Amino acid sequence: MSKQNKKFFGWSGPAAGAAIFQIIKDIGPLSRTEIVEKTGLSKSTVSIHTKKLLEMGLIKEEEEKSNSVGRKRKNLKFAKNNGYSIGIDLGATSLNVALCNLDAEIIDYLGEKISVNSGPEIIMNRVYKYIEDLTIKHDVNKDKIFGIGMGVPGPVEFSTGRPVSPPIMPGWHYVPLKEMLQEKYECPAFIDNDVNVMAVGEKHAGLGQNIKNFIFIKVGTGIGAGIVCEGKLYRGAKGCAGDIGHVEVEGEKELCPCGNRGCLEVVAAGPAMAKRAKQSARKRGSELLFSTLEKKGDITAQDVGEALSKNDQEAKKIVKESGLKIGKVASKLVNFYNPSLIVVGGGVANIGEYFISSIKEEILRHSTSLAVRDLDIKKSEKNNEVAMIGAAAMAINEIYSHDNVTEMVYLNNN
Amino acid sequence: MSKQNKKFFGWSGPAAGAAIFQIIKDIGPLSRTEIVEKTGLSKSTVSIHTKKLLEMGLIKEEEEKSNSVGRKRKNLKFAKNNGYSIGIDLGATSLNVALCNLDAEIIDYLGEKISVNSGPEIIMNRVYKYIEDLTIKHDVNKDKIFGIGMGVPGPVEFSTGRPVSPPIMPGWHYVPLKEMLQEKYECPAFIDNDVNVMAVGEKHAGLGQNIKNFIFIKVGTGIGAGIVCEGKLYRGAKGCAGDIGHVEVEGEKELCPCGNRGCLEVVAAGPAMAKRAKQSARKRGSELLFSTLEKKGDITAQDVGEALSKNDQEAKKIVKESGLKIGKVASKLVNFYNPSLIVVGGGVANIGEYFISSIKEEILRHSTSLAVRDLDIKKSEKNNEVAMIGAAAMAINEIYSHDNVTEMVYLNNN
Repeated sequence: MSKQNKKFFGWSGPAAGAAIFQIIKDIGPLSRTEIVEKTGLSKSTVSIHTKKLLEMGLIKEEEEKSNSVGRKRKNLKFAKNNGYSIGIDLGATSLNVALCNLDAEIIDYLGEKISVNSGPEIIMNRVYKYIEDLTIKHDVNKDKIFGIGMGVPGPVEFSTGRPVSPPIMPGWHYVPLKEMLQEKYECPAFIDNDVNVMAVGEKHAGLGQNIKNFIFIKVGTGIGAGIVCEGKLYRGAKGCAGDIGHVEVEGEKELCPCGNRGCLEVVAAGPAMAKRAKQSARKRGSELLFSTLEKKGDITAQDVGEALSKNDQEAKKIVKESGLKIGKVASKLVNFYNPSLIVVGGGVANIGEYFISSIKEEILRHSTSLAVRDLDIKKSEKNNEVAMIGAAAMAINEIYSHDNVTEMVYLNNN
Repeated sequence: MSKQNKKFFGWSGPAAGAAIFQIIKDIGPLSRTEIVEKTGLSKSTVSIHTKKLLEMGLIKEEEEKSNSVGRKRKNLKFAKNNGYSIGIDLGATSLNVALCNLDAEIIDYLGEKISVNSGPEIIMNRVYKYIEDLTIKHDVNKDKIFGIGMGVPGPVEFSTGRPVSPPIMPGWHYVPLKEMLQEKYECPAFIDNDVNVMAVGEKHAGLGQNIKNFIFIKVGTGIGAGIVCEGKLYRGAKGCAGDIGHVEVEGEKELCPCGNRGCLEVVAAGPAMAKRAKQSARKRGSELLFSTLEKKGDITAQDVGEALSKNDQEAKKIVKESGLKIGKVASKLVNFYNPSLIVVGGGVANIGEYFISSIKEEILRHSTSLAVRDLDIKKSEKNNEVAMIGAAAMAINEIYSHDNVTEMVYLNNN
């Protein structure tokens, strides 16, 4: 046995084809020479496999744009427009369905306000309707839909693709969404909770693109986290990793529907902000909030955000308080998980920079200095689309996994 | 492109050899027929590669013990005794050096009480001395040492194998331990902090053996966690993942050397327990603790453990208080990380079951019911050896990584 420790690109046969595809997909366009350099594979191996991948329609060739007169270099890139994927973002009060290409880029989407309480039959019929409308509008043959992903606002058993006792989704418990979609469209489908799907979207096309370890925190009606570990979504032993909404905030006594007291979600999410704003309005703590309440009969977190944008001091206080509570819980996670990025998304994140900086302030105050060195804390830049992108990307990542592409190449040989 | 999604064992060439080795190492002894079944590789591929692995000395053949008369089946297993590894466990006050086989099984070890304050020159000379003594005693040729692992009681930059500003290791900052060991023994060496090394040991040969996602919590002079994610040690962005000793325990105001107040470590680790016991002894809260203090002039966490074993009520209170504080912090991590196992180790864990059950009590009280479903919380069963095993295993895992074995097979071909 040798003691030496040289690095070596360990793929051969169909697995080499898959590895070549992956590198073209991830960092293409690339010339054949560049692929040889980057993989350490022989010129002939690269030549054989790129030919095969071209035949299979997985990659395509393009001439490099150049102003020089000589022979133009041909580059290879992922054939992301040779098929379609669908990304479905089901929220508590909204449904959005996107037609995407094979790189989870949104071509078009349709959506509406709904209530998830309407139940799976009504909602899924809306989903089918939107897919129908989108495919007709863009002249898409359904055979060309290679995968479907869907995020739902509740816990999901990922392997079976069924919601499990989702608190705000009455009637959806253990409905076989994965099977329903797979049977209807004859392609793989993947279901997960909304926060996981958003984390995947952030990884695929958002701020997490080149980040191996990060946390996506969604603040909306509830609070949850999606964890990316070594470039992959981490689900935990029972699929409930990231459930930070029910971490207790010390000193808070408010009863949470889960049975515990002082859960982060119940003291810092959108409804808590709205509740505090209403209390303040009733006491005339803010004339602006008072007049909103008078006019609309209610105040939402969005109203608090609007009041903040008009520099309302009471709204500022409410937003800050919520941010600090989230930041305090997050600071403990930063010490434990040592991520290099935290992305904050969800409806409440749209309130703006002041909310994000309140979270940041508390993390910087309570985490260790090594853990926050180079830690970025940012608002999602694609907050409103990231769930659709993530849902489509979840399906695509699975379809183009190393094992699956290896198999495609293998079958193409035989 | 095909829509189908059949599973396929994607290795060929040298990578298939590496995959065959891995399966023999992990679940051997196996017959060739069993390897064909488990890998899906052809009979001839398995035959070619097992021949090669036998020639290379990576695996060996043994006849199945059986009472029947007919032809005996030949099984293949990992040749774990064809070489050696060294596992070094450096603590604040102790040094242990183990000679292990290639499966990180301890053949023999030597150790002594030391003070890490003595600095790298003195301590490393003791390390060399112990390796010398062990190799002489067991007639080991130094060429047969394939790898060395070392755990140290402070933060380490894993890639360079250097301690980074370790608070309790004056004189060790940025000392090139990895290079020193590699040059002296001409084999790969790996340095990490003690908690990570213990987590690897627990994964390799302890309670974490078949567990993909777990947390190892060390309670000793300090408190830290080692995180295993999808079967692998997770180090985080800056290598400081698991630093739960500096998570703030609400309501605690004690100043920590890190500059913050109420850090878990300063209110719940061994010294905090000792301090509380001394305060109680001085007030004659416990006659037993009082007489210990009178006799020894001091009380340690170990003394508290001994008093507890004699059912001293004050000691019981102190142990419980510490366990509850650790449990409260851990409960938040359980919600976030959703592990299937928490292993508690380190010196204070030796106090016994009452300490572990106090931690457990608080986790069960504060974590969500889904996150604690099927969650095991246990004391390390190999608490005193797990760091040596983990240090050796860390080296071995790297040496026998898929890429490295693929390379060995490849080089053996050419």
